[in-house]
Amino acid sequence: MKVRVHVSLKPGVLDPQGRAIHHSLEGLGFSGVRDVRAGRLIELDVDDATSDEALDEMCRKLLANMVIENYRIEKVPAAEASA
Amino acid sequence: MKVRVHVSLKPGVLDPQGRAIHHSLEGLGFSGVRDVRAGRLIELDVDDATSDEALDEMCRKLLANMVIENYRIEKVPAAEASA
Repeated sequence: MKVRVHVSLKPGVLDPQGRAIHHSLEGLGFSGVRDVRAGRLIELDVDDATSDEALDEMCRKLLANMVIENYRIEKVPAAEASA
Repeated sequence: MKVRVHVSLKPGVLDPQGRAIHHSLEGLGFSGVRDVRAGRLIELDVDDATSDEALDEMCRKLLANMVIENYRIEKVPAAEASA
């Protein structure tokens, strides 16, 4: 089973990486960009028997820093994963 | 308009960060993890008038390294973005 974990900074947390990307986009001449936030995407390939609780625990213990980050778990349908 | 850009390494490209995460998950006692790949998630807030071509160009010029990475652009529906 393929699982995507989206980790993003909580609102209000300073994001220097996002600001650098924003600045660079403007430097390249792209106008109309109002805000940029940088996060992480972690793709896991786990056994089908893996429970939601186990996935949740992986995120809380290792993948996300719960003090400053939020996470979202997305299970990828088999059809999309093999495409 | 909120746009999410998912940047992930192309298949076959060595991913030391993903391997370190995999190793740590096993060290924490999580079994059943077969593979881990680490990528980036970039959330953009752009003007509604921004064209798909402009978004594509941002990815190719700055957000992704086309030699070793793939990207996927996902437009976030307004309802979800404000939630």
